[in-house]
Amino acid sequence: MWAAGARQPALVLAALAALGLALEVLVARRRRPVREVLFFPSKPSCTEALLAEAASPDDAPVPCPCPLPRGDCAFSRLLRHLLSARRSLELCLFAFSSPQLGRAVRLLHRRGVRVRVVTDAQYMALKGSQIGLLRHAGIQVRHDQESGYMHHKFAIVDRKMLITGSLNWTTEAIQNNRENILIMEDAEYVQPFLEEFERIWEFYDPLKYMFFSKENK
Amino acid sequence: MWAAGARQPALVLAALAALGLALEVLVARRRRPVREVLFFPSKPSCTEALLAEAASPDDAPVPCPCPLPRGDCAFSRLLRHLLSARRSLELCLFAFSSPQLGRAVRLLHRRGVRVRVVTDAQYMALKGSQIGLLRHAGIQVRHDQESGYMHHKFAIVDRKMLITGSLNWTTEAIQNNRENILIMEDAEYVQPFLEEFERIWEFYDPLKYMFFSKENK
Repeated sequence: MWAAGARQPALVLAALAALGLALEVLVARRRRPVREVLFFPSKPSCTEALLAEAASPDDAPVPCPCPLPRGDCAFSRLLRHLLSARRSLELCLFAFSSPQLGRAVRLLHRRGVRVRVVTDAQYMALKGSQIGLLRHAGIQVRHDQESGYMHHKFAIVDRKMLITGSLNWTTEAIQNNRENILIMEDAEYVQPFLEEFERIWEFYDPLKYMFFSKENK
Repeated sequence: MWAAGARQPALVLAALAALGLALEVLVARRRRPVREVLFFPSKPSCTEALLAEAASPDDAPVPCPCPLPRGDCAFSRLLRHLLSARRSLELCLFAFSSPQLGRAVRLLHRRGVRVRVVTDAQYMALKGSQIGLLRHAGIQVRHDQESGYMHHKFAIVDRKMLITGSLNWTTEAIQNNRENILIMEDAEYVQPFLEEFERIWEFYDPLKYMFFSKENK
């Protein structure tokens, strides 16, 4: 009886541990992070409904008269994830000329999302670049000042979702190139990119510009 | 006594379940997949020792006379992961001109690793491209035949490790650009890229070339 009495508390503890672990597994399954891989070129599809709904979610949807199909595609999924931003959006983009993605980013800015953009100086004024429109809308933009390219192509939504890959945000890349993007919420991948963004953001602070070196003064 | 007797088997089962779960957690921790984020430009470092060791692992290392530091850096980590290939290597690269990475890939081919390369047709014959050397070494290379770019920049090692990001495999990108690569063993990310590679590989089979359309015949 003595031995059985000693075993019982141990078994109760083991049962509690099992319950705890099972609960942990359940919670982990519920909070399953977004893990998505998208390949381009994307099938053509009308993204008007997505953008219009994001602009005024309370209005009745106005049907778009364009002849494009309405289905889900790589581009609409990218747009949907981007439009899910509620608090912040960090963009670090070599080239940004897609009008739809530009519209989405301006819309998020109007909705009160804190948007910050880093881009490559040599590409920001190219014909079709969205950067001028973003600045005009009051969005903070910084650019590199080095000869090498600022070649990243990533976005971070609400400091928890990373969108990264080979895709520059251009219509050409979306519709014609073979490209990939990963959409991920794993902290192990998101955190280093957040830190890289903050590092680059500080490094490209206009107060620290070195375009005019001492020799030129 | 009856009540205690009935509870005991239940508690033993719970204890066994706890043990099982604990073991599962331990095994999962042991098999922890590679999850690494690398940023470029990479600090300069001598990669000679890595390449020489991979070429003839049984020989005594010959010290390299170059003045570059020997430390770990983003580029040496990329090279090390690449050289870990034992069975297969799939490469899907827009631009490939880095001599060290070219040497590493030819070395893996000589070691018996099955190497397959897909690249962009417009970039394969550019000055400094490694593609000609790979073909000369007997490595299978296929290329796109479309006007859009084959803009991927990914590698898959032994069908289980994915290396992907913004980095083209050029010295310029490695040493001067701001770039990122992810190195990952999560099956959820690796599997879609493996399938994309096989799709592209089949699509670019030379038997299916359409350079000479019916109208031109």
